[in-house]
Amino acid sequence: MLPVAIIGASGYTGAEAIEILLRHPQAKLTCLTALPEECGNVAEVFPRFKGRCSLDIEPLDLNKLTSKAKVVLCCLPHKVSMEFVPKLLKAELKVIDFSADYRIKDVKVYEKYYQPHSDTENLKHAVYGLCELYRNKIKNAKLVANPGCFPTGFILGTAPLLKNKLVEPSIIVNAVTGISGAGKNPSKNFHFPNMNENFFAYSIGNHRHQPEMEQLAAEIAGADVDVLFQPHAGPFDLGILSTIYCEPKEKTTNEKLAELYKNFYKNEHFVQILSTAPMIKNVAKTNYCHIYPAVCKDKIIVFTAIDNLIKGASGQAIQNMNIMYGFEETSGLM
Amino acid sequence: MLPVAIIGASGYTGAEAIEILLRHPQAKLTCLTALPEECGNVAEVFPRFKGRCSLDIEPLDLNKLTSKAKVVLCCLPHKVSMEFVPKLLKAELKVIDFSADYRIKDVKVYEKYYQPHSDTENLKHAVYGLCELYRNKIKNAKLVANPGCFPTGFILGTAPLLKNKLVEPSIIVNAVTGISGAGKNPSKNFHFPNMNENFFAYSIGNHRHQPEMEQLAAEIAGADVDVLFQPHAGPFDLGILSTIYCEPKEKTTNEKLAELYKNFYKNEHFVQILSTAPMIKNVAKTNYCHIYPAVCKDKIIVFTAIDNLIKGASGQAIQNMNIMYGFEETSGLM
Amino acid sequence: MLPVAIIGASGYTGAEAIEILLRHPQAKLTCLTALPEECGNVAEVFPRFKGRCSLDIEPLDLNKLTSKAKVVLCCLPHKVSMEFVPKLLKAELKVIDFSADYRIKDVKVYEKYYQPHSDTENLKHAVYGLCELYRNKIKNAKLVANPGCFPTGFILGTAPLLKNKLVEPSIIVNAVTGISGAGKNPSKNFHFPNMNENFFAYSIGNHRHQPEMEQLAAEIAGADVDVLFQPHAGPFDLGILSTIYCEPKEKTTNEKLAELYKNFYKNEHFVQILSTAPMIKNVAKTNYCHIYPAVCKDKIIVFTAIDNLIKGASGQAIQNMNIMYGFEETSGLM
Amino acid sequence: MLPVAIIGASGYTGAEAIEILLRHPQAKLTCLTALPEECGNVAEVFPRFKGRCSLDIEPLDLNKLTSKAKVVLCCLPHKVSMEFVPKLLKAELKVIDFSADYRIKDVKVYEKYYQPHSDTENLKHAVYGLCELYRNKIKNAKLVANPGCFPTGFILGTAPLLKNKLVEPSIIVNAVTGISGAGKNPSKNFHFPNMNENFFAYSIGNHRHQPEMEQLAAEIAGADVDVLFQPHAGPFDLGILSTIYCEPKEKTTNEKLAELYKNFYKNEHFVQILSTAPMIKNVAKTNYCHIYPAVCKDKIIVFTAIDNLIKGASGQAIQNMNIMYGFEETSGLM
Repeated sequence: MLPVAIIGASGYTGAEAIEILLRHPQAKLTCLTALPEECGNVAEVFPRFKGRCSLDIEPLDLNKLTSKAKVVLCCLPHKVSMEFVPKLLKAELKVIDFSADYRIKDVKVYEKYYQPHSDTENLKHAVYGLCELYRNKIKNAKLVANPGCFPTGFILGTAPLLKNKLVEPSIIVNAVTGISGAGKNPSKNFHFPNMNENFFAYSIGNHRHQPEMEQLAAEIAGADVDVLFQPHAGPFDLGILSTIYCEPKEKTTNEKLAELYKNFYKNEHFVQILSTAPMIKNVAKTNYCHIYPAVCKDKIIVFTAIDNLIKGASGQAIQNMNIMYGFEETSGLM
Repeated sequence: MLPVAIIGASGYTGAEAIEILLRHPQAKLTCLTALPEECGNVAEVFPRFKGRCSLDIEPLDLNKLTSKAKVVLCCLPHKVSMEFVPKLLKAELKVIDFSADYRIKDVKVYEKYYQPHSDTENLKHAVYGLCELYRNKIKNAKLVANPGCFPTGFILGTAPLLKNKLVEPSIIVNAVTGISGAGKNPSKNFHFPNMNENFFAYSIGNHRHQPEMEQLAAEIAGADVDVLFQPHAGPFDLGILSTIYCEPKEKTTNEKLAELYKNFYKNEHFVQILSTAPMIKNVAKTNYCHIYPAVCKDKIIVFTAIDNLIKGASGQAIQNMNIMYGFEETSGLM
Repeated sequence: MLPVAIIGASGYTGAEAIEILLRHPQAKLTCLTALPEECGNVAEVFPRFKGRCSLDIEPLDLNKLTSKAKVVLCCLPHKVSMEFVPKLLKAELKVIDFSADYRIKDVKVYEKYYQPHSDTENLKHAVYGLCELYRNKIKNAKLVANPGCFPTGFILGTAPLLKNKLVEPSIIVNAVTGISGAGKNPSKNFHFPNMNENFFAYSIGNHRHQPEMEQLAAEIAGADVDVLFQPHAGPFDLGILSTIYCEPKEKTTNEKLAELYKNFYKNEHFVQILSTAPMIKNVAKTNYCHIYPAVCKDKIIVFTAIDNLIKGASGQAIQNMNIMYGFEETSGLM
Repeated sequence: MLPVAIIGASGYTGAEAIEILLRHPQAKLTCLTALPEECGNVAEVFPRFKGRCSLDIEPLDLNKLTSKAKVVLCCLPHKVSMEFVPKLLKAELKVIDFSADYRIKDVKVYEKYYQPHSDTENLKHAVYGLCELYRNKIKNAKLVANPGCFPTGFILGTAPLLKNKLVEPSIIVNAVTGISGAGKNPSKNFHFPNMNENFFAYSIGNHRHQPEMEQLAAEIAGADVDVLFQPHAGPFDLGILSTIYCEPKEKTTNEKLAELYKNFYKNEHFVQILSTAPMIKNVAKTNYCHIYPAVCKDKIIVFTAIDNLIKGASGQAIQNMNIMYGFEETSGLM
C-alpha cells in the first residue's frame, strides 16, 4: 500500500481527498496535517468521518511526514505552497500540489496575478496535471501541479477544437461554480441568508484562472489564444458548469462535433460526450467530466460539467497519483 | 379606482399581479378567471392570500368580465392569448397581454418559433410594453404586449450601447433564471430533488426569446443585430441574471460606460446603475433592474438583474397600466 | 407623518423595518443608526434600497435622534439595548425594543439566561408587544418589548388552549427556523456549503426563548406551564414552523378545535386558521400567522407558521407602533 | 461474484442501489428491470452512470431474471411488491423487499393502513431487516423486509432505552425528511418553486410508518408502546433528522445516556454516538446513523440522522445482503 500524506487536510479539498483515499485499494492515508488551530482527530474536524478514520490531523512535522509517506497531496493555498514544496521534494517525496504556484510556467504572468515566485527552480520541472492531456509527462513527474477547477472544465471542453485548429483564437468562458469553490472560511457573500436565492458574477475582468486557461489553450493550439473568463457563484454546494463560446473557422454540424469529441476522448474513462445539456447533478460526487458541444447560429457552444472538488481538485489529484504509480487510473475513483 | 381583471390568474404571474394590485392605491381587482379546474376562492388557490383577498377565481365569462373591468391583464399562454384578446378589445377593454402573441411584429418570425398567427390585425396596433423605452407609445395603447422576462433584462442592459451604436451588431446573452420562470406545472427537470443542487443550460440554440431580442435590438440600433441567447436554469425561485458580451467599436473605460448608462437612465426610477456586480437577491420581489456595465479585456460585459415575475412580468404589466392611465408610474410597485 | 428612527439598522431586522416603513402611509423614516463600521448610505449597506431610500445610516447621536424622531425601533442586541433604552425614554421618545431585555418580567429568570439587568426600573413598565393578546396595554405604552420570534409562533398557537384551560400544563414545542434568524454575521455553521443540504437541532436543552414562552403561557393560563422548546435550523432564508404537542384534558375533535381557534381570533386580521398544514412559503414576506390545530391520537398538535423577520420581528414592531399611535393596525403591513 | 438483480430500478432507491453495487467487491449487477415506459440503457435513465455501467433496464422477464441472479433487490411500491415476491421466492431467489408489504406482522394493522394482503404465507417467514437489531435472523432469511426510512431513524435512536425499559411507553417522533423521500414522480408540492424556501408537516395524524414504529418498539420493549409520529418535508435532497421525545422512568444524565448508547452499539460499525447535535450533512451519502441522546428538563430527547436513501433504504438493503451471504458487513458501503 502506498503511504500518502495530506498537508492542509482541514479544508474542503482535504476532506474529499480523505474520502477517496479511504476507499483506495492501493494507497493508504498515513499522515494528515493542518495549521495548529485546525488540528484534532479527523472525526472532530469532519464529523462525517466518525467511525471511518481514526487518524489525527496534526501540525506539520517534516521529519515525521517523511518517515510516514512517499507521496504528498499538498492542499495549501498559493504562496504557502511554494514555501513547503521544495522541502518535500528535497526529502524525496513526490508531490501533487493543489495551489497555483506550479501551474503557470511564465513567472512574469504568475507574478502579475499572484506574488513574487520563490521557487522557480522546481517550477521548471513541475508537470501540469491535466491527466487526459499530459498523461505521459505525469507518469515520471516528481512534482505535479494539480489543475485549477475552472481550467479543467474549460480545457477538457475545448481541447478537441484547439488541437485541430477548428476555432478562432478568441474564446469566451462563462462559468458558474457551487460555493464549496470559495473554501471553508465564512464570509459575508457566502453567509447562507445572503447566498441562498442569490446568483451573481465575481472577479469581473480579472480572475486568476484566466492566465492558466490561456497558457493551456496556447500549448494545445500551438498559438496564442485569447480567453475571456467570467465566473459566477450559484446557490448550490458543488460543481462547475462552463458555457464556452467559440467561433468556428468553418461551418460545422452537431454530428461532426460529436464525432470529433468522441474520437478525441475515445480512450478516456472520465470524459463522457453527451448529446444533450450536461447537468451538474449528474457529475456531482464523481470524477467525471460531461461535455456537450453544439452548433448555435454561427458559433459553437461547448457545455462542460464537473464536480469542482473531485475532477476539479481532489479526484484529479488521485488520478494523477494513480498515473504516477502505475495504478489503474480509476482506482479509488469509481 | 380603476377596475382590473386578470385572465389566467391561477399561475405564478397571476399571483404576483394580485399581490401588486392588492396594494395599488388607484386600481382595484374586480375579476379573476382561470380554467375551470383551477378555479376556487383565491385563498384556496394561493393560501398566501388567506385573509387578504376574498375574490373567487372563476371560469371566464366575457359578459361578466366586461361589466366588471376596464383593463385586463391577460396571463394566458401564447396561442390561447390570441384567441381571447380580440374579444376583449372588441368589448372595449384595454389589454396588457403577457404572452408572446403580440410581441413579434414580423409574422413570419413569429410563426417560425410559435404557430400560425390568427390575429394579425390587432398585432399591427399592439405596443411593445418595455416601459423605459416605449413610454410614449404605451400611453395611448389599447393593447400592450408585455415583454418577455429575458428580453427585458437583455434590452435594458444593451439599449445605451445600441442606441449610440457603440458596439458591433453581434451580441452574446448568457442568462440564468430561477425556476418560477418555468411556470407552475410540475415536470421532471424541476421536481425538487432533480433541480436542487443542479444547474444546466436549456433550449440550446433555439430559445423563443431570441427573435424577440433581435427585433428589439434592431429597432433600437436602427440596424440588424445578431443575438446569440443561451439560457440556463439555476436552483433558486426567482430572478434572472444576464451576462451580456458585446464588442465595442472603440476602446472605452468603466468610467465612460458608467456615465453613458447613468445618463441614459437618469429619469428612470426602476433602472439603477451599479458600480459592482448586480445580485439577484437585491432585486428579488421588486420591479427594479440593476445594471453594471464593465470593460473586460477587449469586450464589454453588461450584467443585469431583474425579478423574472415582477420586472420580467407582472410588475412591468402594472407599470404599463400606470402609464396607460396616467397614474404615478411607481403606483403599487414600491 | 410620524417620524421614526431605527437604531441598529444595519441588520436583517433593520432592513425589514426600513422596507415596511418605506411604504407606510402615516410614518416616515427620518433617522437610521448603526455601529460606525456599519454606517454608510442605506443603498450601500443594503443594495436592494438603491433608488428607493436616500437616507444615511449614521453613528448614533442622541441629540440628533431626539430632534428627528418621536418613536424608535431599537434593533440592538440584548445587553446593549438596556444601556440605550433609558436614555431614549428620558428624551421622551417612545421605544419599541427588539431585544430580550424588557421581555422577561422576573429579573432572576432574565439574569439566569442572559446577564445582570441594569434597567429594572423601565422593565417594570415595559409592555410585552404580542399585539393580538396585549393590544389594550400596548395602546398606552411608552416602552414595548417586541416579542421573540419563536415565542410569537408558540403563543399564537397555544393561547386558545391555555386561556380555556383545555390542555395539561406541559407542552413540547418543536420548531424550525430559516437562517436569517441567526443574524447577518457569517459563522461556520451558517457558511453556505455547510448549511445548504443540512438540518440540525441547536441550543439543546437551554434555548433562551424557553423562559419567555413559559412566562407568556403562565400569564395566559393563569398557572405555571412547563414548556420544553427545541429549535432546529433548516436550509432556507426565512420563516418559522412550530409543531406544538399538547395533551388535552378532555377528548376533543378537529372540528371543535377549528371552532375554538376561529372564534378566539375572529377579530384578528393577521391570524388565519387553516384546515390543513401551514407552509412557511405562504407566510413568507407577510405579517400573517397561519395556524392549524389537529387532534392526533391522544394529543393535540398545533402547527403555526410565521415569517421570523416580519411577524416574528419587524412587522410586529410596526403593528405595535400602529396600535400605539392609533393608526389602522394593518398600515404598511399589507 | 454474487449475481444481483434490481426490480423497479428506475427510481431513486434503484439508482442508489446501482451506485453501491458498482463498487461492491463481492457482488455484481446482472439484471435491472422497470416498467416498460421507464426502460432503456441505464445511462439514459440516469445520466450519472454514463461510462460507468452499460446494463439496460428492461421490462421484467421472470425466466431471464431467474437465470441471471441469485438475489433480488425489489424496489417496487407496496401492493405491487406482494404480487411479484411470491414468484421470486418460488424461483428460489432470495429477496430483499423495499416495500411495506412484508414489514408489518399483524395483517389487520397492515390492511388498515394499506390494502388487503395477498401473500400472508410469505409474510410469516419474512425477516425485518433492521441489521443492527435482527442480524441473526437476517443471516438465514430468504425474504428480508427492508425497513422504512423513518422507522430506521426512530428505532436506532430508541432501542437502548426501550430494551432497558428506561422510558414510559409513550413516545413522540418529530422528523423531517429531504424530498428524495417523496420519490421521483413530479407533484405540485415538490415542484421546485413550491418546495424551495418552504417547510411543512404532512400526513398529519396518520403516517403509514407509525404502525411500523409501534410494532418495532413493542418487540424491543416487550410491551406495547404508543408512538406519535409527525413527519415534515424540508427543502433539501436527502436525509432524515428525527427528534424523539421520551419520558424517562427515572432521572438520568447525559453521561449515563452516552454510556448506555455507546455500550449498546459498541460492536456496530454504522451507528455512531455523538456528544453534540447530529447533522444531516454528516451522514449524507453514507450508511451511517448518527445519534445524540440528551436530557432536556424532565425529558430525554434523542436526535438521530440518517441518509434516507442509503441507511434508510438501499444501503441497509446491501447491508442485509452482506449479512445474508456472509460478506463483510461493510462491503460496498464504505
